[in-house]
Amino acid sequence: MKTPAPNFLSALSALRAIEEGSLSSEALVRACLDRIDERDATVRAFTQVDSERAIAQARQADRGAAAGPLRGLPFAAKDILDSADLPTAYGSPIYAGHRPAADAACIAAAREAGGLLLGKTETCEFATLTPCATRHPLDPSRTPGGSSSGSAAAVADGMVPLAFGTQTSASIIRPAAYCGVVGYKPSYGLINTSGLKHASPSLDTIGVFARTVADARHAVFGPASAREPGALRVSVCESSQWAAARPETIETLLAFARRLERGGARLRTVHLPPGLEAAVALQARLSAFELRQSLAYERRWHRDRLSPRLQQRVEAEAGLSMAGYAELRSSMRAAQREAASLFDDADVLLYPAADGEAEVGMETGSPRYGGLWTFLHLPALSLPVGRGPAGLPLGAQLIGVLGRDLELLAAAAFAEGCAAAD
Amino acid sequence: MKTPAPNFLSALSALRAIEEGSLSSEALVRACLDRIDERDATVRAFTQVDSERAIAQARQADRGAAAGPLRGLPFAAKDILDSADLPTAYGSPIYAGHRPAADAACIAAAREAGGLLLGKTETCEFATLTPCATRHPLDPSRTPGGSSSGSAAAVADGMVPLAFGTQTSASIIRPAAYCGVVGYKPSYGLINTSGLKHASPSLDTIGVFARTVADARHAVFGPASAREPGALRVSVCESSQWAAARPETIETLLAFARRLERGGARLRTVHLPPGLEAAVALQARLSAFELRQSLAYERRWHRDRLSPRLQQRVEAEAGLSMAGYAELRSSMRAAQREAASLFDDADVLLYPAADGEAEVGMETGSPRYGGLWTFLHLPALSLPVGRGPAGLPLGAQLIGVLGRDLELLAAAAFAEGCAAAD
Repeated sequence: MKTPAPNFLSALSALRAIEEGSLSSEALVRACLDRIDERDATVRAFTQVDSERAIAQARQADRGAAAGPLRGLPFAAKDILDSADLPTAYGSPIYAGHRPAADAACIAAAREAGGLLLGKTETCEFATLTPCATRHPLDPSRTPGGSSSGSAAAVADGMVPLAFGTQTSASIIRPAAYCGVVGYKPSYGLINTSGLKHASPSLDTIGVFARTVADARHAVFGPASAREPGALRVSVCESSQWAAARPETIETLLAFARRLERGGARLRTVHLPPGLEAAVALQARLSAFELRQSLAYERRWHRDRLSPRLQQRVEAEAGLSMAGYAELRSSMRAAQREAASLFDDADVLLYPAADGEAEVGMETGSPRYGGLWTFLHLPALSLPVGRGPAGLPLGAQLIGVLGRDLELLAAAAFAEGCAAAD
Repeated sequence: MKTPAPNFLSALSALRAIEEGSLSSEALVRACLDRIDERDATVRAFTQVDSERAIAQARQADRGAAAGPLRGLPFAAKDILDSADLPTAYGSPIYAGHRPAADAACIAAAREAGGLLLGKTETCEFATLTPCATRHPLDPSRTPGGSSSGSAAAVADGMVPLAFGTQTSASIIRPAAYCGVVGYKPSYGLINTSGLKHASPSLDTIGVFARTVADARHAVFGPASAREPGALRVSVCESSQWAAARPETIETLLAFARRLERGGARLRTVHLPPGLEAAVALQARLSAFELRQSLAYERRWHRDRLSPRLQQRVEAEAGLSMAGYAELRSSMRAAQREAASLFDDADVLLYPAADGEAEVGMETGSPRYGGLWTFLHLPALSLPVGRGPAGLPLGAQLIGVLGRDLELLAAAAFAEGCAAAD
């Protein structure tokens, strides 16, 4: 078996090789930088790369200066997350060249764990729908998905083994599915959001892109012992949203479900209850109202530098009063309570991650399969499970119980094995 | 009856006077600035006052340039909230002179509503326990409470009619009680936290200091119609924490309860269930762990400029793993579910707001009466209800149902009437 180039190693394989001395952090960082040099003119995943600093820090790590579960590992972060030593523009011309005073908590934590921030990755405008420059690594005529476009593409293309992204609707799940990588959106609030430029604070969730489920778990939980799941109970969760999915998406999802069953999972099919079907529209309203508030300063002082579609979106819920918003929040909590019943007979739900393969053009695709689960604050993970007619990745989404992220990750690791088995 | 000086008017009285033309915004702003000139060398409520801009904006408002429910009204904001045109130091020497790129969402919203940011108010170091410069307006040898020290003192002392504060444990409720003003901490998440320098994102809640309950409601909900409550059901909520309260605090609280009863409320006494007694310690742990993460950048690069007590506090939960933290979050959600039963027979709970009168010295007093309710995400309001042996204010805390802030505010308005009746 051919050993992959260092820049295509999983994070855990790379960390193990660094630990054993068979790979230096510097060699890994240089392999990633070479890949970026070679490819990023096409893919455009990065807004900023700090080669010199990354190499210097890698050398320090190789001399034993760094310690921690990410020792010597390069990572990237979506440019919606503050970094003190790299400009942070939030995908908006308003913030071109902006230098935050501090690192976002998740970046500081990854650095504290020994990781090296290789660069910042492209984000849609303020993590909404307006596309950024990034192209799909396997077909530059297509979108990588959004809004965590650069993070998904960078991990998929061998530029960096781990990258932070954020999700307010489907901004981790969708690009992960399009790009064929693991995208893990934790339970709401698990990763500290300090230093995140918020779109919708009640929904915004930081997560990670990785090449394996174990890598994603390691990035968030460190060297936590993996739980051995019992016989996994999987509910294929049908909903009205399935109607929008391409036939191959559903076929691949159901074929994947059967593979899980052959692997030992107990499978059933449930239908999303009406109360949760109705919650889809509530997520859109809550998200638009909070976005309007979060960008109140930019609306007032820089309206002409918001994209036309964002100018429109921040007005979508201009008529909602604070009393109406408070009611919307109560509806969100009611939906979260109702969602618990989905897991009476299931450990995880299986759901589409995107309509199909990445679309041709710059539009980042519909976020429809993510919004509800983000609204419910549930942990979710997108796993590559097949290929579509154009030969591009198709993903499946696994959704777990609120707060039981390690159980979702264990289920996803099992599912990953099943996906690879055929 | 003597009309109060403009700077001592309630926000709603001032807004009405401006609307009617009997008071100009400029006259109001100048009265506030005169009061600050006269008093702030002693009280030290403000870190920054922008007199010229405030007067210029007041004149614009008087010429009809501003519109909205806060038209022409000066307000202040705790210096833990970003402001683009005034330095924002978060109560830390690390950020002396720091200029954020944007206003916090709540400041931008208040400005959009026609309000004028008069200045920034003192905060304890990163909204924790390390005292700032502010003194109690009625006795400069005493603390005004913290961490929203400056906002509470400024409203109490006639410097500004409304001020934003934040609460992670009791940083609104306690200083409001000490200073004898209304302090309203909404349900978690009601006021958008974009542009807040986080201590503990799962707890941090923005709220307001005001001179009346109606002012607090207006600041958050705008001209929402006040709900007429039916016969209010009040549960005096006893707990082990009562043991720390001064005798006069309990006496005043119980006398206030009897006044509510005479006013028509139905009164009962409940005891905090064991599960919620236990949650007090969980709040402290969660808060310390998240603080450690939120200040990861400052810990790494500016440790020696954190106060000794903050250096200690950020290490308190250094040993907690992410898996342990996830469990702590699940315990928080379980406590939140359990708390719902407190309201089976009650609309609001009555609870101490502080041990007693403001303490002599700079220490900001125990946050013990706030932490649990902040952890439970419940809306809470501190109301001045009496005086202690030194003649200083004593407060009582009203706690409402999650998400039913307007009902809490209606109950508090009723209670305010009862408090004033005797």
